[in-house]
Amino acid sequence: MERIPILRVGNILLLSIQVELHDSLVQQIQSDVLGALEKEPAAGLVVDISSVEILDTYTARALAQLAQMSGLMGSRTILTGMRPAIAFTLTEMGFNATGFRTALDVDQAITMLNRQASKRRRPAAPNRANA
Amino acid sequence: MERIPILRVGNILLLSIQVELHDSLVQQIQSDVLGALEKEPAAGLVVDISSVEILDTYTARALAQLAQMSGLMGSRTILTGMRPAIAFTLTEMGFNATGFRTALDVDQAITMLNRQASKRRRPAAPNRANA
Repeated sequence: MERIPILRVGNILLLSIQVELHDSLVQQIQSDVLGALEKEPAAGLVVDISSVEILDTYTARALAQLAQMSGLMGSRTILTGMRPAIAFTLTEMGFNATGFRTALDVDQAITMLNRQASKRRRPAAPNRANA
Repeated sequence: MERIPILRVGNILLLSIQVELHDSLVQQIQSDVLGALEKEPAAGLVVDISSVEILDTYTARALAQLAQMSGLMGSRTILTGMRPAIAFTLTEMGFNATGFRTALDVDQAITMLNRQASKRRRPAAPNRANA
């Protein structure tokens, strides 16, 4: 069975989807990503779909689920490279993109995730009510 | 025709090869990478072949050519994720891996490329003969 390799770039996991997504493949991806996060935590997950030409609402929902699952394991998901036709169709079909964020490309997504990670590392501002 | 997306991560281009490589695909990759380097230069090129199960000497040579071409355009190539069986077979076949470097995974390759890039950015040591 085909498998999408999960690439680690610093503290971010990167998936480059290059085949049309179908049910069992998305399930495989979900299980592989959660396994990778269990082995070594990651601040973020970037899923690039710039090669994907068709994405139905079922698969989009499965990707949103992947984002939710990864979120529960401490990793934020950003979907990158969505083609205009897919964005158009998903919206027309009433798909509501909650659960994951999107970015134009992988570079932008990694910048977003690193900025968030550095914010979380910064000490919290003193609470004025308690000061 | 299938195309491998070229992902930009900072000043590095990343290719995740997920299909068996054949002649015309490698030629397509060569032309796409050189096109991407022409559009915007990159310090390095990382080619991940962790999903590739078969790599003949012809294709390995084509990848070495890709590294040479990219080198001429100012970008160093690192091949990552080579499976033990491929490393074994290529060596048995007398393939000489000149032209490209290898790393265990993408993360290691990016660290290597960034270290080199920061070295090149450092000012050159003063030439004592001219001092």
